[in-house]
Amino acid sequence: MPPSAHDKLLFTPGPLTTSLSVKQAMLHDAGSWHFEFNHIVAEIRRRLLALAGTSRDQGFECVLMQGSGSFGVESVLGSVIPPNGRVLILANGAYGERIVRMAEVLKISHLAYRTAEDTPTNPSAVERILAQDPAVTHVAAVHCETTTGILNPIQPIGQVTRQHQRRFIVDAMSSFGALPIELESCGIDYLVSSANKCIEGVPGFSFALARRDPFLATAGWARSLSLDLLGQWQGFEKTGQFRYTPPTHALLAFHQALDEWEAEGGVTGRGARYQQNHATLMHGMCSLGFQPFLPAHVQSPIITAFRHPADPAFRFDEFYRRLSDRGMIIYPGKLTQIDTFRIGTIGRLFPADLEQLLAAIRLSLNEMGCALPFNSTPQPHAIPG
Amino acid sequence: MPPSAHDKLLFTPGPLTTSLSVKQAMLHDAGSWHFEFNHIVAEIRRRLLALAGTSRDQGFECVLMQGSGSFGVESVLGSVIPPNGRVLILANGAYGERIVRMAEVLKISHLAYRTAEDTPTNPSAVERILAQDPAVTHVAAVHCETTTGILNPIQPIGQVTRQHQRRFIVDAMSSFGALPIELESCGIDYLVSSANKCIEGVPGFSFALARRDPFLATAGWARSLSLDLLGQWQGFEKTGQFRYTPPTHALLAFHQALDEWEAEGGVTGRGARYQQNHATLMHGMCSLGFQPFLPAHVQSPIITAFRHPADPAFRFDEFYRRLSDRGMIIYPGKLTQIDTFRIGTIGRLFPADLEQLLAAIRLSLNEMGCALPFNSTPQPHAIPG
Repeated sequence: MPPSAHDKLLFTPGPLTTSLSVKQAMLHDAGSWHFEFNHIVAEIRRRLLALAGTSRDQGFECVLMQGSGSFGVESVLGSVIPPNGRVLILANGAYGERIVRMAEVLKISHLAYRTAEDTPTNPSAVERILAQDPAVTHVAAVHCETTTGILNPIQPIGQVTRQHQRRFIVDAMSSFGALPIELESCGIDYLVSSANKCIEGVPGFSFALARRDPFLATAGWARSLSLDLLGQWQGFEKTGQFRYTPPTHALLAFHQALDEWEAEGGVTGRGARYQQNHATLMHGMCSLGFQPFLPAHVQSPIITAFRHPADPAFRFDEFYRRLSDRGMIIYPGKLTQIDTFRIGTIGRLFPADLEQLLAAIRLSLNEMGCALPFNSTPQPHAIPG
Repeated sequence: MPPSAHDKLLFTPGPLTTSLSVKQAMLHDAGSWHFEFNHIVAEIRRRLLALAGTSRDQGFECVLMQGSGSFGVESVLGSVIPPNGRVLILANGAYGERIVRMAEVLKISHLAYRTAEDTPTNPSAVERILAQDPAVTHVAAVHCETTTGILNPIQPIGQVTRQHQRRFIVDAMSSFGALPIELESCGIDYLVSSANKCIEGVPGFSFALARRDPFLATAGWARSLSLDLLGQWQGFEKTGQFRYTPPTHALLAFHQALDEWEAEGGVTGRGARYQQNHATLMHGMCSLGFQPFLPAHVQSPIITAFRHPADPAFRFDEFYRRLSDRGMIIYPGKLTQIDTFRIGTIGRLFPADLEQLLAAIRLSLNEMGCALPFNSTPQPHAIPG
């Protein structure tokens, strides 16, 4: 990218638009062995636990892991399930399916419980499966499934899982930091999220929050050296350092991002802005006749999937390109059965940015010859359960 | 780090001191799905092959992988060795031992051939082992072993490996881009290096160069989803994108770093600067009476290990701290049997920076009450073979 380019706004689930001050924190080279940097690493680990309403004193640990969020999820899955363990994976989108695929590749015994992409996991169904399948040792769920933006009810699922004395793994990639998640009340043993979601850092690492007692009992189970979650934790404990070269610049950016997250009022403030972004988006899109894929009561304020309108003048590729030419990047759909596109409302975006996006959408659709507003008669859902 | 801080110079094997322009390339947020960013990714992949004197037309592929260099090494090891394969690992330092550890964790049949930390692998020994052990399918070597800075003779080892029709994996982490490596003449099938070494990018991803024919025959062998090298390549081929969120800022920085690498004259120019850095360092350190750990003929210009001087006034912790207070970060030793420290001569460092370091070293030693120059009578090596 030429340094003079005005950056496009990213209405995506990540990489996100971040603040200039977060990016400017990367204008420094830090020594990964040096105590000043390791002080920052320790502070990040402490603050992430506080963000989840807990601390080391309350029996939780935080482990940072190089790579994307999926590396973090695989690190947990491959490290904390014993050789004879079995994981129940609750899936209603691409990220749940990714966990299934990880279990396959890692040769971990597993069972997938799937619901339609517009249907949250029902805790009663989880209870039934756990009662019927005593071999299941772990339950894995996705909090906000970024495929659609659907929210799964991790609190009742976690309570059921705890009642049945199984361990609960939550992929909270796109929700952590903007939606309230209390590890204890949700019965979460392992939570995974990433630097480049609601904390608004840059991509480069993920992190896991782990309940200490079960976590420390996982020695020898890791199926990878690089992704060994306990090994990584032991490295931090022993030397304060990452075992292998950390993305130092991404960590400096994240440290700044945590400051900005706190200044905005933490989960409450950040979540409120995303809610406003989402409300602005929904109001404008519905006025244009777009139909959201999800019913409102299961829709998160993180990312929203919209059906392609029936108007034959609408072509997604052209729509995308026209918005890109106007400096705005939206996201393609990820559903297999229905044509959708997605608009993210997280990152350093404000309601005024959503209004700008809506104006660009209207202009682009006019240029494409679409008849606005689209006919918004709800179409019947056509997803197999 | 406070934005006003003058960054310390990093005389380490990485993370390194990088140019301001490389860091400034990170002042942009790029969409990982967007064609402009994917054009940059494609160009990086093409230029890395060219850097190794090859191209796709000549039968090689380049795969970028999120995470540190070790993630890249594990990605190759865990993806390209068949279930019934066996790898001969040539080790004379911590990074060779790390490959052994990876093979253990991944449950890959392996055989370690170790030489002393000051002794390069002898190609004749490799030949003998390959002749005796027909089960060995792959040979893994470390080019520049960063533990000491020793150079292993990958060209004759590669020739022997090829003659015996085995596949050759080279960890060229700290040498690629500054020391000439031709994949074809070295018989290399898989080479791994990282963004944050001699190309002088920032940490966040590694890359593998792979000979296409054997590489494409590895389907189904990957022991990890995130670190699946062929899966990652297939993602690039299918969509031009990373399968999972890439460290977009680190990639923008690397793109700029490649420009600066070319402007400096590629391997020749970059290598010449590092040679000058190293010569400046050796001249000054020998004048002070420090003894390098390695004999000169096996020492790389990348990083140099020095023995702790016998002077009782010398304490490494204090020495390190005094240099740090003067804005210079050196690196502790990694040898198990002998006390050493290390000084890296790569990254955005010039001979004048090494002179500045030498002046700081002299001042610090004077303050510590060391009698200079140290008695430099060579001490006998005391390493078990």
